[in-house]
Amino acid sequence: MPRNAFYAQSGGVTAVINVSAQGVIETARKHRDKIANVYAGRNGIIGALLEDLIDTSLESDNAIAGLHHTPSGAFGSCRHKLKPFDKNPAEYERLMEIFQAHDIGYFFYNGGGDSADTCLKVSQLAKDRGLPIQAIHIPKTMDNDLPLTDTCPGFGSVAKYTAVSIREAGFDVASMAKTSTKVFILEVLGRHAGWTAAAGGLAAERPGDAPHVILFPEIVFEEEKFLGAVDAAVKRHGSCAIVASEGLRLPSGEFLSEAGTKDAFGHAQLGGLAPLLATLVGDKLKYKYHYAIADYLMRAARHIASKTDVEQAYAVGKSAVELALAGKSGLMVTIERKSDSPYSWTTGSAPLEQVANVERKMPRDFISEDGFHITDKCRRYLAPLIQGEDYPPYANGLPQYVTLKNAGVPKKLGTVFALTK
Amino acid sequence: MPRNAFYAQSGGVTAVINVSAQGVIETARKHRDKIANVYAGRNGIIGALLEDLIDTSLESDNAIAGLHHTPSGAFGSCRHKLKPFDKNPAEYERLMEIFQAHDIGYFFYNGGGDSADTCLKVSQLAKDRGLPIQAIHIPKTMDNDLPLTDTCPGFGSVAKYTAVSIREAGFDVASMAKTSTKVFILEVLGRHAGWTAAAGGLAAERPGDAPHVILFPEIVFEEEKFLGAVDAAVKRHGSCAIVASEGLRLPSGEFLSEAGTKDAFGHAQLGGLAPLLATLVGDKLKYKYHYAIADYLMRAARHIASKTDVEQAYAVGKSAVELALAGKSGLMVTIERKSDSPYSWTTGSAPLEQVANVERKMPRDFISEDGFHITDKCRRYLAPLIQGEDYPPYANGLPQYVTLKNAGVPKKLGTVFALTK
Repeated sequence: MPRNAFYAQSGGVTAVINVSAQGVIETARKHRDKIANVYAGRNGIIGALLEDLIDTSLESDNAIAGLHHTPSGAFGSCRHKLKPFDKNPAEYERLMEIFQAHDIGYFFYNGGGDSADTCLKVSQLAKDRGLPIQAIHIPKTMDNDLPLTDTCPGFGSVAKYTAVSIREAGFDVASMAKTSTKVFILEVLGRHAGWTAAAGGLAAERPGDAPHVILFPEIVFEEEKFLGAVDAAVKRHGSCAIVASEGLRLPSGEFLSEAGTKDAFGHAQLGGLAPLLATLVGDKLKYKYHYAIADYLMRAARHIASKTDVEQAYAVGKSAVELALAGKSGLMVTIERKSDSPYSWTTGSAPLEQVANVERKMPRDFISEDGFHITDKCRRYLAPLIQGEDYPPYANGLPQYVTLKNAGVPKKLGTVFALTK
Repeated sequence: MPRNAFYAQSGGVTAVINVSAQGVIETARKHRDKIANVYAGRNGIIGALLEDLIDTSLESDNAIAGLHHTPSGAFGSCRHKLKPFDKNPAEYERLMEIFQAHDIGYFFYNGGGDSADTCLKVSQLAKDRGLPIQAIHIPKTMDNDLPLTDTCPGFGSVAKYTAVSIREAGFDVASMAKTSTKVFILEVLGRHAGWTAAAGGLAAERPGDAPHVILFPEIVFEEEKFLGAVDAAVKRHGSCAIVASEGLRLPSGEFLSEAGTKDAFGHAQLGGLAPLLATLVGDKLKYKYHYAIADYLMRAARHIASKTDVEQAYAVGKSAVELALAGKSGLMVTIERKSDSPYSWTTGSAPLEQVANVERKMPRDFISEDGFHITDKCRRYLAPLIQGEDYPPYANGLPQYVTLKNAGVPKKLGTVFALTK
């Protein structure tokens, strides 16, 4: 008898997480003998906890194909981290209860480090209880901080957005520099690791190309050195384009964006990092500046997604289903690099015990000695990940993103479950 | 005897101002019997004042064709507004001197309102002095604030960037809203007129689509009404995506971004508008928020340029040369709309006397009665301007923008001229 699958999206969404969903659903639809329906969690794992499941079998093949070019989380995501089992066993018991009630035999959890941890726990618990549930983790994070995989789907597109954007803004500021703006700062998401900032470095293909300075969270921020690097770039190239990671830290360990200035009401300085750096440049170097803050724009930018990233996002979804059908559980799907140039890769898998709670940092030898740019080694790693364009269809000048029906699965338990914060 | 042409880029650059340069140079190259060389001002009009001219005839046809897909100002731009003639006649005298020395018979000035004014003055002065110089203004401004033309090249691409970006971020925040971010704010450039913010409204094609709230500089900002609109959107749609023009004003007339909070050093609040609005939403409505500041990214975004805009940018450059060759002077090239749907347009011209120092505002009936969205009338006007995609070529995952040789024209005067600030 075929059983049902449960799929949920976790944490911050990306330009391509829906492509992984597409990979899961389309692959499941090819194996109706084993997988009856794919139920998605409405707003992620809390959809399971609240018995709020979406019946994806009610979506047409066409609608599911539309996920290919639709950013964000089509079923809703959530920031709800399940506590360790011994701290809150009720949540895991509830998952088991829901999965049994809805005959879930396959658990696909699409997210970052926290969801890998939850997925591992579900797999262990099912095994302990003798419940036949295959739990497979599908990697997703724009931060690229999961271990044991060449990259995380979602990152390649953020990387491409960053490199394209700083190249464009770099051209802009260079043409204004004679009488106006000389310094441009692009603040990018990435609190703990510098992968997204590093990706901006790909735009610097020839001497003098933007970005001229990259600020990584891995390198302690030193005002004098920073100002020196900016001034040198302006003197040498006429202008300076900077990519700054939001996670910059002072020698004290404090986030730069949270340190120092307070507003009149004692609030921490509101504007975050970029205006702080910009003001520093203006005050100390007397250069006119502009800054942009990419925020969600960078992780939602399906219009400039990396084709490589899109293909990998699909592959990890497809592979997750195939692994589950092969009886595997407690694994994360991985991307394995076979060569840098030409880039060649395949999917693999890694035991979740080795994934959960391990954060992958930028190696120091990916950052230049002066701390302000990427090395050739880093470039060799990053370059393939932004290869290729994969444009969405347009109508009326706008990308046509799909919204699913997201019809609910009738409740079988109907019991109330109180979410803990 | 063929004479030379002078071309200069003025003010803030755009994704397509180089396409106008391409139109000028390619059209001039077809009329070598009348136009010997096109000299470009290095860094705009100050290139003329400093006798720092670029010989575009040294650029290959291929390089000039590459301007088609290269954002920014390929010859450099500047923010140097010539004072009225009676305030600083020396600058105009200097232009005449340089133009005579380099046998300039055609003056093409590519910019916004200020450059239209300068172009008019050059045309008048040449006429008064009996110098055969045809002065034609080529419109360019992302702000869309020039009169007598259906639109300004540069605006359509900014409009498309804004609409695409808020659609993408709107999808993102909608999928996060259940447990996390409910409000997203995109701050856009546009200090005096709401055209760029209005363009975001094009993304709202169906009920519930982002953006849910647009903040125009034309509508005085009222905190209570704003918070009411945001809260209503969150309650109705689960999330609220906002496009905010940097030029928002308080009832006092002050810019919102410059009013209110000061930092610990007495600086005006650093972060500008978006963090101010975001903090308001967080403090008063207790919703989690994110914000992005597009800044230069929006005007440099050649990767998502409007095909309509690209075509119009070329057409105004080409038409400028054709008008000059027909003996016209003191005109701005215009875009004339013949129908909304299907959009049909042609180039025309307008006397510079009617253009200079006239700022085109958003009509009130382009803004909905509540002040928070665009009307159907506005949509009919804006929709054609973002039609079509015109992607640059890519290599290594990055758009391939050209950098010209920009070799100088030998000086004939060599005299020193001191720029006034």
